Amino acid sequence: MDKAKKIVEAKKETEKQSGLGITVEKDDFSEWFTQIMLKADLADYSSVSGCLVIRPTAYAIWEKMRDECDKRFKKLGIRNAYFPLLIPEKTLKKEKEHVAGFSPEVAWVTEAGDTKLKERLAIRPTSETIIYESYSKWIRSWRDLPLKLNLWNNVLRWEFKHPVPFLRGREFLWNEGHTVYSNKEDAEAEKDEIMGIYKEICEDYLALPSLIGRKSKKETFPGAEYTISMEFYMPNGRCTQGPDFHHDGEIFAKAYDIKFLDKDGKESYAQQNTFAISTRMLGVMFAVHSDSKGLILPPKIAPNKIVIVPILFEDSKDKVLKKCKELMSKLGKFESLLDDREEYKPGWKFNEWEMKGIPIRIEIGPKDLENDSVMVYRRDNGKKEAVKLKNLEDRVSEILEEIQKYLFDKAKDSLNNAIIEVASFEEMLRVLKEKKIAFSPLCENIKCEENLKAETQGAKVLNIPDKQPTKVGKSVCVICKKKANYFAYVGKSY
Amino acid sequence: MDKAKKIVEAKKETEKQSGLGITVEKDDFSEWFTQIMLKADLADYSSVSGCLVIRPTAYAIWEKMRDECDKRFKKLGIRNAYFPLLIPEKTLKKEKEHVAGFSPEVAWVTEAGDTKLKERLAIRPTSETIIYESYSKWIRSWRDLPLKLNLWNNVLRWEFKHPVPFLRGREFLWNEGHTVYSNKEDAEAEKDEIMGIYKEICEDYLALPSLIGRKSKKETFPGAEYTISMEFYMPNGRCTQGPDFHHDGEIFAKAYDIKFLDKDGKESYAQQNTFAISTRMLGVMFAVHSDSKGLILPPKIAPNKIVIVPILFEDSKDKVLKKCKELMSKLGKFESLLDDREEYKPGWKFNEWEMKGIPIRIEIGPKDLENDSVMVYRRDNGKKEAVKLKNLEDRVSEILEEIQKYLFDKAKDSLNNAIIEVASFEEMLRVLKEKKIAFSPLCENIKCEENLKAETQGAKVLNIPDKQPTKVGKSVCVICKKKANYFAYVGKSY
Repeated sequence: MDKAKKIVEAKKETEKQSGLGITVEKDDFSEWFTQIMLKADLADYSSVSGCLVIRPTAYAIWEKMRDECDKRFKKLGIRNAYFPLLIPEKTLKKEKEHVAGFSPEVAWVTEAGDTKLKERLAIRPTSETIIYESYSKWIRSWRDLPLKLNLWNNVLRWEFKHPVPFLRGREFLWNEGHTVYSNKEDAEAEKDEIMGIYKEICEDYLALPSLIGRKSKKETFPGAEYTISMEFYMPNGRCTQGPDFHHDGEIFAKAYDIKFLDKDGKESYAQQNTFAISTRMLGVMFAVHSDSKGLILPPKIAPNKIVIVPILFEDSKDKVLKKCKELMSKLGKFESLLDDREEYKPGWKFNEWEMKGIPIRIEIGPKDLENDSVMVYRRDNGKKEAVKLKNLEDRVSEILEEIQKYLFDKAKDSLNNAIIEVASFEEMLRVLKEKKIAFSPLCENIKCEENLKAETQGAKVLNIPDKQPTKVGKSVCVICKKKANYFAYVGKSY
Repeated sequence: MDKAKKIVEAKKETEKQSGLGITVEKDDFSEWFTQIMLKADLADYSSVSGCLVIRPTAYAIWEKMRDECDKRFKKLGIRNAYFPLLIPEKTLKKEKEHVAGFSPEVAWVTEAGDTKLKERLAIRPTSETIIYESYSKWIRSWRDLPLKLNLWNNVLRWEFKHPVPFLRGREFLWNEGHTVYSNKEDAEAEKDEIMGIYKEICEDYLALPSLIGRKSKKETFPGAEYTISMEFYMPNGRCTQGPDFHHDGEIFAKAYDIKFLDKDGKESYAQQNTFAISTRMLGVMFAVHSDSKGLILPPKIAPNKIVIVPILFEDSKDKVLKKCKELMSKLGKFESLLDDREEYKPGWKFNEWEMKGIPIRIEIGPKDLENDSVMVYRRDNGKKEAVKLKNLEDRVSEILEEIQKYLFDKAKDSLNNAIIEVASFEEMLRVLKEKKIAFSPLCENIKCEENLKAETQGAKVLNIPDKQPTKVGKSVCVICKKKANYFAYVGKSY
């Protein structure tokens, strides 16, 4: 055998062994999720641990999320800008709590070319510190407020834990909103606007329900007065924090000297907010909806909603392909794909597009042509139906909406079923052991939070919903048994 | 005087001294350009030298450029993706010429948190090396080709020269296209598609003419077989390289082992291209069109094309403002602004919007109302005309087109007037001394290029146009006096 042939044979063998399909069930979450990432061509590892390659399908979804958020931000008068990647050590260290929160995971640039730098430069883990230096220069009077800027950028946090694609990694993409107001009331009013946008994107586009609430003291963003978060329930029973909103009050304004003169010539510190949504949401969405055949995508966020697969026989090939092309132009608004590759059999294509999560597959062969119909297959629940050509556009629109709703409802059921109210630490432990979320009465004491974490092998307060059960006044903290301040969601988290 | 009052007084004094307008003429280019950047709120310095803050107006222009390019890339079947910011030293160093070209300006991450890293990580100066590691894994057969990916990201090159906002800095934003083909012919055919897109964006949107041609051997991108560039002529007589396209042939494919099996089972190296356009183009555009009153923007790229400034008197205020709001909804498609701030006088507003480069100002006062007309002011040439309200939409559309054309024609004249054909080194020197571009016969010898640079205090071959004068065969190289291979554009460059 010559060398070229040997390579061919070896490659074929590798492909065979590696298996094109997912080889494990969703229960084996970690392996299943890795296979989905790699085999649906969503992401790949790079030679830097924890730094992911985001492949075109996943990136297209991110672009769609970004654009939908961005459109809504702009309607609120938020404008985009860009701030440097690098932050001098001295700038980073001005706000003490903030830097304490981030410095364990900051990557430092210390050399450039052959030169050792005089001061270490941090790669931004988030940009408050570098942005607020500028804000301090730009903001002088009430006329400069509100100042509402947003960034779409990459940030780096040197996690030392085991990386999980999209969910826990060192580099990710996100938005950073940084707004400044002249008074607390206006600043706090932004909370509902922003969380409303994030909720809409997560629920209506990604088909992901969440728990929305305020973070406990221990989990509040370093440098914020309070943090509002959206928490998502994953198939392995862990929770993941999604988008969040931080009201910083005057904390950063004091550290970075952001002051303004009001109409009466009085000088005050400004009131600030920050908020973010990241590529982590892609991981949550892929994990929640997909199955052992591969990726499942909600139609509203899927880059391609339909794939047309012709069933080709020699004698009817031309006719079928002609019809396919007609359908392509009719179904163009669904960003449809036509898979007319002749080197693969239909069954092979079915598997490939199921793996890649195209919401609807349309099969069309000579028999379908005779009946003026096509076969429509739903990726989410595997159901098939014959649809008359004359009804195709309408029916496809309906089915796409049905899929969107089905995925959201399913995820919502799963979340609702996971929430169990508890009244004691023993009950909490049992719920956590079952990989569920304990809705627990707790006090505000940060010691109790620390004890909770220690005694549950890492569970934590996810957040505290606004709407509290009336009985909270009569309940006791499951940790210290003293009067409870609130009911909070408690779970294991990424 | 108490402390707060003192601060107020000091701030007022600073504002007064700093002057709101541009204090120098365009001839004093460096100072003028810096003032345009800062006073038109386009950019600001950060605490890391050479790393710029891109403020909302400039960033909105970048978004528009990006989106127009991106739309066209997608039509060619190019898909977006994301690759890591950090590149391990060993990955970066696989292609020798490439790394030699970049390593003097690479910033290195050597520490994370409190840990010293085992291997230095480069912040990407460009992403060939990290991308092609993935390509080597992904590309196996002719079925995987062409692979056409693009990135919109930030890159860092640690320049040690004096930074100039947008034009020469350490961090910038750009696109990196990285395409892979199975054969050289298809790969090279992409050149005209991509350069066509860049030319359209630069000419039709940014109103910037350029010199398009092939880079000389010395100036070819490290790792490419050849580079095609667009070179722009700046008001100070320097040239700037804009977008470029590199055909890499098999050079990277060999270094990073990017091979595929063709239909006959034969294995070959793939053929590659890369291409880019960056935020540097913002600097070129700001510099070429603007004047001593501030920024001038071509309407097609301006985030806001019109500003309406009401002339307010107590007795007619409500009427005028009502009309302004009517106009705002009529002129909405021009992304119009209404400046109804009462704390500033019209003259102050005129100056501000001229500084910020809004292409058209519409003035409307009680007398205009009586005549059913408004005053329309053109930022580019300072001309004013009264326009009847019933004609306003049409006339404004026309004027915007006139401005776009006027700016392009003016820049084109300036470029054409700067190109002087020369036949000897003495003539070349004279042309360069006049801050113009010498169109010079040269040979291919890299020694001649080096001598040219040394003996002209830094001028270089900008590029070599495709269309050559017929006399090239009879001409001699201005450096070595031997037979010339081509006529090339020679100038000083950023």
